[in-house]
Amino acid sequence: MTRAIVLFGHGSRDPLWRAPMDAVAARIAQRSPAVVVRCAFLELAQPDLGTSVRDLVAAGTTQVTIVPMFLGAGRHVREDLPVLVEALRRDHPALDIALMAPVGEHPLVLDLLSEIACPR
Amino acid sequence: MTRAIVLFGHGSRDPLWRAPMDAVAARIAQRSPAVVVRCAFLELAQPDLGTSVRDLVAAGTTQVTIVPMFLGAGRHVREDLPVLVEALRRDHPALDIALMAPVGEHPLVLDLLSEIACPR
Repeated sequence: MTRAIVLFGHGSRDPLWRAPMDAVAARIAQRSPAVVVRCAFLELAQPDLGTSVRDLVAAGTTQVTIVPMFLGAGRHVREDLPVLVEALRRDHPALDIALMAPVGEHPLVLDLLSEIACPR
Repeated sequence: MTRAIVLFGHGSRDPLWRAPMDAVAARIAQRSPAVVVRCAFLELAQPDLGTSVRDLVAAGTTQVTIVPMFLGAGRHVREDLPVLVEALRRDHPALDIALMAPVGEHPLVLDLLSEIACPR
C-alpha cells in the first residue's frame, strides 16, 4: 500500500496564501518520509483535487486521506467537497479514500486557538 | 483597563461557517470570564470589525487584541486587515489595539495540523 495525504485548502490568487499549508506539508514530509503529501485547492490555485489525486494514483498511491484545511465549515466543506470526493470514488474505484473532518472542527485545534488568542 | 479579544474571520453566507470561531470564543469565555470576547468578520457576515470595536469601546473596553482567524495569510490578512486596523486607530485614538499574526502562521498550529493530518 502506498499512502498519501492531500491537504485540501480553499486556494487564493495570492501565492503567499498557501504558505501555511506548505509548511504543514513540509513538517509531515520531514517527520514521515514514507508518506506522500500534496496540497490541492478548491479554486483560484492549482492543482485541483481531481488532478492531485489522479497524479497520485498514476504514481502508485492506493490509499489517500483528504484533510480539509478549513477553519470554517461552510458550504465549501459541507457541500462542494463531498461532491468532489464522490467523483473521485467514481473515477478511482480501487483507491481507498478517507475524508477527514475539517481541521477547524478538531477539539485540539479549538483548544490551541483559544490558548493563542488568550494566553493564560 | 477593560480587555477584549476580537476573533476576526473571513465570514461566509453560510451561518454554520462561523461555528469553530464561536467555539473558540466560548472556550475563552469559560476559561477567562474577565475577558470580553467577540467575533467579527471581513465580509458576508456581521458584525464587521469596525462595528465590533465601536461597540466594545462604547461598553468600556480600553485594550483590544485582534486575532486573525485565517489559516492562509493572503491579501485579506496582509492588505485588507492592516487598512481596517489603521482606521480603528484613527477612530479610537485612546484605544490600545494589538494585532496578532494570523493563527495559520503560528508554529504550534502548524505542528498540530501536521499531527492531525498524519498521526504518528
